[in-house]
Amino acid sequence: MDIVAPPTTTNPKPQGERRGLLIVHTGNGKGKSTAAFGLALRAHGRGKAVKVYQFMKVPSARFGEHRVFEQLGVPIEGLGDGFSWKSHDLEHSAQLAHDGWVKAEATIRAGEHFLVVLDEVTYPLRYGWLPLAPVLQALRERPPHVHVVLTGRNAPDELMALADTVTEMAQVKHHFQAGVPAQRGIED
Amino acid sequence: MDIVAPPTTTNPKPQGERRGLLIVHTGNGKGKSTAAFGLALRAHGRGKAVKVYQFMKVPSARFGEHRVFEQLGVPIEGLGDGFSWKSHDLEHSAQLAHDGWVKAEATIRAGEHFLVVLDEVTYPLRYGWLPLAPVLQALRERPPHVHVVLTGRNAPDELMALADTVTEMAQVKHHFQAGVPAQRGIED
Repeated sequence: MDIVAPPTTTNPKPQGERRGLLIVHTGNGKGKSTAAFGLALRAHGRGKAVKVYQFMKVPSARFGEHRVFEQLGVPIEGLGDGFSWKSHDLEHSAQLAHDGWVKAEATIRAGEHFLVVLDEVTYPLRYGWLPLAPVLQALRERPPHVHVVLTGRNAPDELMALADTVTEMAQVKHHFQAGVPAQRGIED
Repeated sequence: MDIVAPPTTTNPKPQGERRGLLIVHTGNGKGKSTAAFGLALRAHGRGKAVKVYQFMKVPSARFGEHRVFEQLGVPIEGLGDGFSWKSHDLEHSAQLAHDGWVKAEATIRAGEHFLVVLDEVTYPLRYGWLPLAPVLQALRERPPHVHVVLTGRNAPDELMALADTVTEMAQVKHHFQAGVPAQRGIED
């Protein structure tokens, strides 16, 4: 068998600054949002303030993650309207994305949260509902202790260039391909 | 800009059975364990019974995820001894991995949990502490409603062949490379 490196937590820790990280989860595979939720859970477990914004979920969404975050007292807020790239009312979608970003930007700049999650934010960026430049600017100018995790397929190159850590969740195999449908409690 | 597919949650749902999935998170990037924790959180939010085993963490580990899972009443159990592939007492490491697997196998076969997480289980498999064949057999023979998520680098090919869904968390960029050390609340 191949020799594999030990798990990440036992990696040697390089010397250097402690500061807020810009983390991107992209790619076509599963795990982009759930890994962001796992980070939110971990930070909350360390007693840190966390805020989760979901750019493609409606405010009334009651998936498993919403129920748990509410139970924990971690604020999670849907900013969307169930819109998709097939939206028939692009002006409305753009307005919601803009309004959502205003909230998220204020939270990031205020510096009161250890971690801010911008879940599925790449879609409004890619669909042209939200311009990239002000997002990059706010991320660059954020208070140095604030961690931000951004998720979604096809993250813009400029965002990946700015990020400290980028993981591509690559789909090797998916149960949809075998005709197995979405499973409640696993996918929502 | 490229046209990207809508997020997974809006994908068409193929017709087919609802059943427990075998899910693998592998690759050298971040997010394998945190995405498993996110799935555990989501399932718990749906009122499902979840059990998390960690093959490389000591039973006394008190990382962020342990604190939150305890708060939620989700059992999480470290089966290891802080061992690594550099372990000086391979016999002891193998014994722990074996004892841990006995527990995990019993939980999987009992069918009382909706989701069982085998976090970092690929390491004892790869280091030769735990034989692959009985693991594959237990996964194949598990009650059909039980979801199992297995994480760790370099997942064995036979495991990926058996799995329903495999995601490779590929490291595009990591903040360690830029000399930024591990950040409490983000990495543990």
